[in-house]
Amino acid sequence: MRRSGTRHLLSMADLDRDDIEQILNLTESFAEVGERSIPKVPALRGKTIAWVFYEDSTRTRLSFETAAKRLSADTMNFSVSSSSVNKGESLRDTIETITAMGIDGVVVRHRAAGAPHQVAQWTDASVINAGDGWHQHPTQALLDLYSATRHLGELDGKHVAIVGDINHSRVARSNAIGFAAMGAQVTLVGPPTLLPPSLAGWPVEATHDLDSVIDDLDICYLLRMQLERQGQATVPTLREYHQEFGLTSARADRLGSDALIMHPGPMNRGVEIAGEVADRPNAIITEQVANGVSVRMAVLFLLLGAGLEPVDHNLAVA
Amino acid sequence: MRRSGTRHLLSMADLDRDDIEQILNLTESFAEVGERSIPKVPALRGKTIAWVFYEDSTRTRLSFETAAKRLSADTMNFSVSSSSVNKGESLRDTIETITAMGIDGVVVRHRAAGAPHQVAQWTDASVINAGDGWHQHPTQALLDLYSATRHLGELDGKHVAIVGDINHSRVARSNAIGFAAMGAQVTLVGPPTLLPPSLAGWPVEATHDLDSVIDDLDICYLLRMQLERQGQATVPTLREYHQEFGLTSARADRLGSDALIMHPGPMNRGVEIAGEVADRPNAIITEQVANGVSVRMAVLFLLLGAGLEPVDHNLAVA
Amino acid sequence: MRRSGTRHLLSMADLDRDDIEQILNLTESFAEVGERSIPKVPALRGKTIAWVFYEDSTRTRLSFETAAKRLSADTMNFSVSSSSVNKGESLRDTIETITAMGIDGVVVRHRAAGAPHQVAQWTDASVINAGDGWHQHPTQALLDLYSATRHLGELDGKHVAIVGDINHSRVARSNAIGFAAMGAQVTLVGPPTLLPPSLAGWPVEATHDLDSVIDDLDICYLLRMQLERQGQATVPTLREYHQEFGLTSARADRLGSDALIMHPGPMNRGVEIAGEVADRPNAIITEQVANGVSVRMAVLFLLLGAGLEPVDHNLAVA
Repeated sequence: MRRSGTRHLLSMADLDRDDIEQILNLTESFAEVGERSIPKVPALRGKTIAWVFYEDSTRTRLSFETAAKRLSADTMNFSVSSSSVNKGESLRDTIETITAMGIDGVVVRHRAAGAPHQVAQWTDASVINAGDGWHQHPTQALLDLYSATRHLGELDGKHVAIVGDINHSRVARSNAIGFAAMGAQVTLVGPPTLLPPSLAGWPVEATHDLDSVIDDLDICYLLRMQLERQGQATVPTLREYHQEFGLTSARADRLGSDALIMHPGPMNRGVEIAGEVADRPNAIITEQVANGVSVRMAVLFLLLGAGLEPVDHNLAVA
Repeated sequence: MRRSGTRHLLSMADLDRDDIEQILNLTESFAEVGERSIPKVPALRGKTIAWVFYEDSTRTRLSFETAAKRLSADTMNFSVSSSSVNKGESLRDTIETITAMGIDGVVVRHRAAGAPHQVAQWTDASVINAGDGWHQHPTQALLDLYSATRHLGELDGKHVAIVGDINHSRVARSNAIGFAAMGAQVTLVGPPTLLPPSLAGWPVEATHDLDSVIDDLDICYLLRMQLERQGQATVPTLREYHQEFGLTSARADRLGSDALIMHPGPMNRGVEIAGEVADRPNAIITEQVANGVSVRMAVLFLLLGAGLEPVDHNLAVA
Repeated sequence: MRRSGTRHLLSMADLDRDDIEQILNLTESFAEVGERSIPKVPALRGKTIAWVFYEDSTRTRLSFETAAKRLSADTMNFSVSSSSVNKGESLRDTIETITAMGIDGVVVRHRAAGAPHQVAQWTDASVINAGDGWHQHPTQALLDLYSATRHLGELDGKHVAIVGDINHSRVARSNAIGFAAMGAQVTLVGPPTLLPPSLAGWPVEATHDLDSVIDDLDICYLLRMQLERQGQATVPTLREYHQEFGLTSARADRLGSDALIMHPGPMNRGVEIAGEVADRPNAIITEQVANGVSVRMAVLFLLLGAGLEPVDHNLAVA
């Protein structure tokens, strides 16, 4: 970010409140671009951004791709299934190879926590973490913060519950840090087996009882239940999970009328959220998707384009 | 279509003769664009078209992609193998997600008949059916009509045989409706097990004897034999099939010199068509492929661009 | 090439020294384009290039794609895994189909030696061989020649060893011809089972003893050891291979300080090259990758664009 002088976006823990506010303000401008009849600006013309995804993620990739196209950047797709990664090449050699072809930014998703930090040491390009293991997914947190502030204004003192499998969730980790940085009160909610054994270092509280906090929430943020974990000792059955930790119709009725229902998608209707609840007016799940494009435009622009030309010029018609 | 006031192209059954003629006339203009040294027009600049293909189809996708590029549209590829569909997300949530990222058109291929109709209820974007089960494949029929009229002129009274596995063919269904709408006489030809048990609702006749109609045809349209059905009780051996329903050299000799040989591709040479016959001058199979791009330009333009600016302007150099 | 009047690049054996020098000179110009802040020229605007890859190759494809984008060409990806090739369509029908959609160039990779030559007979487009079986990979050789000349100047009399599994290497074949054409002395090095039984027709010498030539080399070119061949009778264990034919630290110390270490990538560190050696200053492996883009720009431009407009004009800003 320009403020902190870094070229990368690796973790929400690297951003302070001013950094986040800078990004959210710029997101507002880019959201406006998205509504033009020709939603393009020449801000990153001539820049090339590589996707290096070692995990499947159509949604996140399409969101970044849409953002890159609206900024007139070129893209290069290096995804694991079709790559020589299969030939056993090291991550480092892979990164040096695509860097040599000429890239300005690299968006990395990897199973291993910390992989994007390593990548940042091996390339001159700006590195954006699009999810590393259970560690971080900063652009998801930023789009959630933007979505929340558009409805609620300042987040100071607002109460956010993040509900589900906290232990295995980079979304939980990034959002807990992000909401706390913006002054919100964060409560993690989940069964004991899915909550961190210790909250040391987390700026949050925790509970195993969703019903104990539901009436007080400004935001009820539901995590995707990873169905593939079913049958493991740590996870209840989906039916039990829905009863105890799902946002059922009854629980949703207890939320205040201005309280937001959020979810990073894709949803398991009937598991973490009742199908009917996902379609209520205060469920802003689809809006989160739309905001994801604008937030990623802001991040790409700040890392790859800022400083070259005044922002205003770059928002002119492409 | 502009005439009928719809935003979608879901089935040939939705188009009347005037609709079809409007599309074929516009196709003529776009075919001309394809022959320029820089075959591009700015007609859909700033529009985004998403491919949502739940079935493999390189040819159809490449044809649509080429059409979209010539119209200066952006594209977004959401194909099943790399998508979160694998995570069990509903088709509806998938469509709402990509709609939220900002798309103007969505081209859908799906195993389930009727899927594109459902998609049309879940998005503001224009929906184009690129094949749904055994039901419809309207742009295939339109490119076939365009190809036929370029050689034969008006199709009134012309005799078209559609030969092969009619039962499992969306191409047969769409073409039967399309050719009939243009005034042609349509005869379906195939073994009893591959013909519909009843022709009620089909504007066609049917026969099990290709030799009984071959001398009279203006168009002999061969369907691809789906080899994976071999060994099923309903399908003869490929050798038997070729003898009885294939366009052998002997049968091709009986066609009039102006009669057209057509096939949607990819061909099984030696099964539904003799290899030598596929290379005769009146076999216009490659021309069908080329016309596919122009027809899809016309359809995309009518659904996504018409009304915004006069057509003439949009055909100017990009 | 313009000189020889051909539209294709199928084999290094088709190029004489003048052809190669023309390409390397043009590469120099395009390398300069790659260093601009907006690394694009309009040289191939409106041209479409299709990738027809029947073998996985992310690196080569990305390199060609980057080259195509810098030249402002459009691209069309017809890769085997997602294509109707699976449906048993003949290579010829596939090529005729994509040609019908309108392409100017087709870049082919195929398991079968000679496949690109056949493709050239079935299309009006220019054909570029991106690797056919164990036969040829001419753009790899050209980028290696360019990389070598940038460091060493004229290659006359320079001594090049190509080390590894010569028998199964199109890179070895193309480079041996290319370096010899430029006046270099080429020695093939490998175990008896991996060297051709006869050198008739190869403009080279051969040895089984890397240590016998190492002190004399200007270039030590290491081939990738194909790990999947391990366990076959012809191939030693990786450990033995590294001892006898790997560029160990000890052997690298015996190279002259100006001698180049080259590798086509991706490397097996610890097999054909010691990890530490790959990072030495005279190892130009990453530079080879960067030069690959420039060489492919030159080749695409000469085959698809030359003659239309003066080169100078095409190097203007896009």
